[in-house]
Amino acid sequence: TDSTEEIVNSLNQNGGLVHWVNIQTLDRHVVKAAEKIFKFHQLTTEDILNTNHLPKLDVFEDHCFLIMKIFTYSEGKKRFDYEHVGVLLFEDSLLLLQEYPGDIFDTVRLKIKEGSGSIRKGKSDYLFYVLIDTLVDHYLEIMEEMRERAERMENSLLEGEDSVTLNEIIKMKRQMNRMRKFTFPLITEVKKIKTEPPSFFDKSTLTYMEDVFDHLYLLNTNFEYLRERLMDLINLYHYKLSENTNQVMKVLTVVSTIFIPITFVAGLYGMNFQDMPELGWKYGYPAAMGVMAAIAGGMIYYMRRKGWM
Amino acid sequence: TDSTEEIVNSLNQNGGLVHWVNIQTLDRHVVKAAEKIFKFHQLTTEDILNTNHLPKLDVFEDHCFLIMKIFTYSEGKKRFDYEHVGVLLFEDSLLLLQEYPGDIFDTVRLKIKEGSGSIRKGKSDYLFYVLIDTLVDHYLEIMEEMRERAERMENSLLEGEDSVTLNEIIKMKRQMNRMRKFTFPLITEVKKIKTEPPSFFDKSTLTYMEDVFDHLYLLNTNFEYLRERLMDLINLYHYKLSENTNQVMKVLTVVSTIFIPITFVAGLYGMNFQDMPELGWKYGYPAAMGVMAAIAGGMIYYMRRKGWM
Amino acid sequence: TDSTEEIVNSLNQNGGLVHWVNIQTLDRHVVKAAEKIFKFHQLTTEDILNTNHLPKLDVFEDHCFLIMKIFTYSEGKKRFDYEHVGVLLFEDSLLLLQEYPGDIFDTVRLKIKEGSGSIRKGKSDYLFYVLIDTLVDHYLEIMEEMRERAERMENSLLEGEDSVTLNEIIKMKRQMNRMRKFTFPLITEVKKIKTEPPSFFDKSTLTYMEDVFDHLYLLNTNFEYLRERLMDLINLYHYKLSENTNQVMKVLTVVSTIFIPITFVAGLYGMNFQDMPELGWKYGYPAAMGVMAAIAGGMIYYMRRKGWM
Amino acid sequence: TDSTEEIVNSLNQNGGLVHWVNIQTLDRHVVKAAEKIFKFHQLTTEDILNTNHLPKLDVFEDHCFLIMKIFTYSEGKKRFDYEHVGVLLFEDSLLLLQEYPGDIFDTVRLKIKEGSGSIRKGKSDYLFYVLIDTLVDHYLEIMEEMRERAERMENSLLEGEDSVTLNEIIKMKRQMNRMRKFTFPLITEVKKIKTEPPSFFDKSTLTYMEDVFDHLYLLNTNFEYLRERLMDLINLYHYKLSENTNQVMKVLTVVSTIFIPITFVAGLYGMNFQDMPELGWKYGYPAAMGVMAAIAGGMIYYMRRKGWM
Amino acid sequence: TDSTEEIVNSLNQNGGLVHWVNIQTLDRHVVKAAEKIFKFHQLTTEDILNTNHLPKLDVFEDHCFLIMKIFTYSEGKKRFDYEHVGVLLFEDSLLLLQEYPGDIFDTVRLKIKEGSGSIRKGKSDYLFYVLIDTLVDHYLEIMEEMRERAERMENSLLEGEDSVTLNEIIKMKRQMNRMRKFTFPLITEVKKIKTEPPSFFDKSTLTYMEDVFDHLYLLNTNFEYLRERLMDLINLYHYKLSENTNQVMKVLTVVSTIFIPITFVAGLYGMNFQDMPELGWKYGYPAAMGVMAAIAGGMIYYMRRKGWM
Repeated sequence: TDSTEEIVNSLNQNGGLVHWVNIQTLDRHVVKAAEKIFKFHQLTTEDILNTNHLPKLDVFEDHCFLIMKIFTYSEGKKRFDYEHVGVLLFEDSLLLLQEYPGDIFDTVRLKIKEGSGSIRKGKSDYLFYVLIDTLVDHYLEIMEEMRERAERMENSLLEGEDSVTLNEIIKMKRQMNRMRKFTFPLITEVKKIKTEPPSFFDKSTLTYMEDVFDHLYLLNTNFEYLRERLMDLINLYHYKLSENTNQVMKVLTVVSTIFIPITFVAGLYGMNFQDMPELGWKYGYPAAMGVMAAIAGGMIYYMRRKGWM
Repeated sequence: TDSTEEIVNSLNQNGGLVHWVNIQTLDRHVVKAAEKIFKFHQLTTEDILNTNHLPKLDVFEDHCFLIMKIFTYSEGKKRFDYEHVGVLLFEDSLLLLQEYPGDIFDTVRLKIKEGSGSIRKGKSDYLFYVLIDTLVDHYLEIMEEMRERAERMENSLLEGEDSVTLNEIIKMKRQMNRMRKFTFPLITEVKKIKTEPPSFFDKSTLTYMEDVFDHLYLLNTNFEYLRERLMDLINLYHYKLSENTNQVMKVLTVVSTIFIPITFVAGLYGMNFQDMPELGWKYGYPAAMGVMAAIAGGMIYYMRRKGWM
Repeated sequence: TDSTEEIVNSLNQNGGLVHWVNIQTLDRHVVKAAEKIFKFHQLTTEDILNTNHLPKLDVFEDHCFLIMKIFTYSEGKKRFDYEHVGVLLFEDSLLLLQEYPGDIFDTVRLKIKEGSGSIRKGKSDYLFYVLIDTLVDHYLEIMEEMRERAERMENSLLEGEDSVTLNEIIKMKRQMNRMRKFTFPLITEVKKIKTEPPSFFDKSTLTYMEDVFDHLYLLNTNFEYLRERLMDLINLYHYKLSENTNQVMKVLTVVSTIFIPITFVAGLYGMNFQDMPELGWKYGYPAAMGVMAAIAGGMIYYMRRKGWM
Repeated sequence: TDSTEEIVNSLNQNGGLVHWVNIQTLDRHVVKAAEKIFKFHQLTTEDILNTNHLPKLDVFEDHCFLIMKIFTYSEGKKRFDYEHVGVLLFEDSLLLLQEYPGDIFDTVRLKIKEGSGSIRKGKSDYLFYVLIDTLVDHYLEIMEEMRERAERMENSLLEGEDSVTLNEIIKMKRQMNRMRKFTFPLITEVKKIKTEPPSFFDKSTLTYMEDVFDHLYLLNTNFEYLRERLMDLINLYHYKLSENTNQVMKVLTVVSTIFIPITFVAGLYGMNFQDMPELGWKYGYPAAMGVMAAIAGGMIYYMRRKGWM
Repeated sequence: TDSTEEIVNSLNQNGGLVHWVNIQTLDRHVVKAAEKIFKFHQLTTEDILNTNHLPKLDVFEDHCFLIMKIFTYSEGKKRFDYEHVGVLLFEDSLLLLQEYPGDIFDTVRLKIKEGSGSIRKGKSDYLFYVLIDTLVDHYLEIMEEMRERAERMENSLLEGEDSVTLNEIIKMKRQMNRMRKFTFPLITEVKKIKTEPPSFFDKSTLTYMEDVFDHLYLLNTNFEYLRERLMDLINLYHYKLSENTNQVMKVLTVVSTIFIPITFVAGLYGMNFQDMPELGWKYGYPAAMGVMAAIAGGMIYYMRRKGWM
């Protein structure tokens, strides 16, 4: 079949000391075929096929099994997707299974090329390190983009711009929560490599792994920071709305408080009683105007003192 | 009696290597009868009969005792019930006591049939694993349904639809809380099987139990996620309400601010003073109209600048 | 004195294998007298007399000292009181000191009678267990009553009834807080019996104590659950109030937005200018009425679309 | 100098088995002089002089060093001050350095006199215990005063009295926070005495110290309780304000909804159109009155049903 | 190049027992050159160049590597910057790399001069201590400035001044969060020196380090305190806004409730019905005035009793 060919193809393509096999589909038959070739546990297959599974790292006697997610975040598209990835590490080969065809291998290949000659001699464990490192760096980049976007939104709110809507903030919070859910377990899981490393894991690779732990810790800190930031953003939105409502109320109150009483006075002299002496007075009209001006002035004075005008 | 017959019946029906006994009532007399036959502790009986008891797992020398809940969640009915279940595991038999007659055994039987031949040789401990696994998977399904419903509600709110009411959200929160209360203790309790397994527990079954721990961890993570989601949902509802109140206030203020002052002007020239020169002017009426238009225009300009119109 | 008589009386009354002494006053002289007879530490006396002391359990070489509270909760009276209780357990006697005369002993005696014959052979340690068990069960009952009341209040709020006031909720929260303060330490304190049991404590009694730990854990879980519930209740009250304010505002805005503009139009034609051509028109009046109807209709259409009517 | 005299004076005054030295100033020269006489570390001096230092207990080989605060809380004055205190405990002497002259020694002296004869034989370690015990009791008293004041404020708010202002609550919260900041570390610090007691510390004194740990635990619990209480108080204030705003809005809405429509009707028949047939009708005026009454009645009925009147 | 000269220069300038090298740029070439001279790990170089890296302390066999931040906080400028600093400590030399040229060395040099003669004999480890101590003291000073500013803002709000804006509080919260993010990890990182000190670290220096731990603990406590304070500040702002809105509403309601009904009465007698008997009554006008006064009086009485006037 098409998928089996792909396996053979990758085996040939990477026929060096370490076999890299990249299966870019999570079709049950393909994974089952890989299970037979690489002889891993049936439950591992189930975990690979369950695309809702949380990240985890299982260390077995002769191999490791890692579940991770690849995220695609694009501010332009405002969509946020993730892809299920399973990695099986054996002494002399690495099997990467991912949901959709993607370019993650290109970045890894690039990183390995970038690495100095001394690094190239690395075995499958080093490849494993580069893979995790690439993904964690990728997470950090997405976090940084999110953080920058949150900062821009906060600045817009602080400057009183209308461009930030509640929906936008809420959607960003949802993205952050989903990403957190699918990366958080990794922080503890990857540590297993340190406490119980597989027999074929080189000590020097563990030194490199320290760098990954550092980055995972940074990721965790950045999540907490972004989370607080988004909470602050929502609160800020709410406070700004309260301030706006308060200001709207003030204008309504100022206008009503000035005009309602004097409208009453005008209404008073609009009554049609036959016997209203004021109406015949010579200065009746200017006097009424004066009374109204006095009332309005008093109200304005009162509200000025209150700081509402 | 009817219930004793049921016990005998189940014993016969499952007369293989492992005895499965399923008692579908928590009548005191029936449980007491089972206590005598299976020789478990009197306090165990009390725990089985106390339908408010939290989930727990007691590991004794020659048997295990597990308390769990079965939930029935149905979005259509909008009801949420739970059922008290006690499981007693002996070396060669398993006793399941549940509050109401139900179909949980069917699912378990199906799972066992699904399992490959190598699994069928399993003893009571494997049956125990399948039972717990079935229940935890069941919990996860309910969680997933809840999560989907919460997501639909959030989307409705974000799109400004009126279909989501506070009562609905609050009721869902209550269901989630109740479910959490009756599943949370399980997460720590089931771990006891690993730290102090009973003597007759097979090592291979413990490997399968790892899968249950994974799922319980996932359950816990999903609870936290759903909980945060419902909190966000309630807050979103509140923010949307504040936004709505703010908008209502703005309309009131706009209308009042434009019309109250000009109504005053109209009232002014409705006064009946004998000596009001403006009333006799040729262009008095258009002039008054002009003044009113100017006032209204000024107010509109002010509120446009404020962004209220 | 009267109190010394009471001691002697109780000693006689319970002249079996285990001496139960129940002192139903915390008068300093009485407690001091008991201190001399039972030879306990002077600081123990101070703790018994300090009715604000938190619950604790001190395990000494030849005796235990327990401080607990008895709560009286009555929904009818809406009062909530508690009573300071000290328990001293020796190998062959148990001394119970309580603030006011009460019926706790009756319940304990009943429990012991209920227990099967095998239990009656128990020594002071078993009596101690029954006493703690009785109190913890008592706490659980009060919790359950509180929970039911909170549920009733929540249902009333959800159904929009006016019967629930903020004051009622706040008072219930205070009661819960006070009860929590005086039972929470017990959860950790009673565990001391397990980690460092006194020499005269029978192993079988420790098995029974497991039941108490279970119930204390349940108590703790129920507290958390009730606490969250009361928080939710207060928030629900707040949300309902916001919803109500929003609705009140809507009615005000609807009425004002419809009538303020047309009142202005009416005011316009109530002006007394000599030269207002419209006033002389044949269909002036119906035309004005039409304009007003059009304005009102437009406003109604606008607010219908906004969903405010 | 004056301060050196003070040292000598105190040395003489307390020339018993244990030397008590009380320096009632934190002047650098005086403390430096004491450093030379008592031979403690230069960093200890720095900690004594740094009046912002948090409480701590350092246990050295031959002496202990304790930093605490004395609080002065007075509801009348509504001021809240604290004083920096350093205590140095040697095998045969105790050096107490405090910021301002005060009466703490009087209370300690009183406590020692109160203690029975067996206690008087105590060495410096016992004096140390009495000193800490006195301070912790002092903290508990202040906490109790605060709690009572908070309770009074809460009751006032619940009964709808206007006497409680937000400023008052906020100021109390600040006092509580400051006190918490400067007593909280003590809870863990004093425990050091138990885990690593200095060589000259008597075992019997450690038994007495248990009492201090108890009180510190109580202090901690009371802080949490008071903190929650103040939070509840602020929230209660906020809820009461919301309720008040809601009620104010209701009155405005009721009055506006009744009178705005009928004012429009009155305005309608105040128009000056020449051809308004209703004006000439015999029962035109009573009919208009009837229409207004009907409108007002309808509005009143609607708002009664809504529960706003 | 210019940067290499700088290295040589610093080496000469400090040609005593301990070499201090201060590189005031994080140019890749310069750091790479330093890497070759001082022979540290390539990953260390990466950490130095990554200016977003969180603080950390790595203890290697023959050297330590510390990452810290220097903050510049200036209330006047209202800007808040930070600078990335890397410190490499070897047995006989200390390498300090900082992002921008700055004066931190001056303060350190001053501190060393201030230290007594006995301290001057210190090796590189003592210099390391002084450096950390200087930075932590610097953090504490900034915290203190922030705390004072927050207190001034709180006092202004409590006294009802308008000078404090939400934007100002939010910006301060952001500064605090950023500072917290970049100092918090230090608290745990610096402890590593105690648990696994490098071989060349003198025991006496570790005693001095205790002082640093004390200050870091104080820093942590102060952060929590400031954080709570800023939260309280934001809440206070919100409460004050609610109070203000409530007061604005009250004035609107009072004015509307008094004038709207009496304006209706005036409008009533402004109607032009031919047959309105009241208009012809002798005391019709005073009677109407009386009715209006009665209505207004009733409203005023009602609102006085409610406490709204």
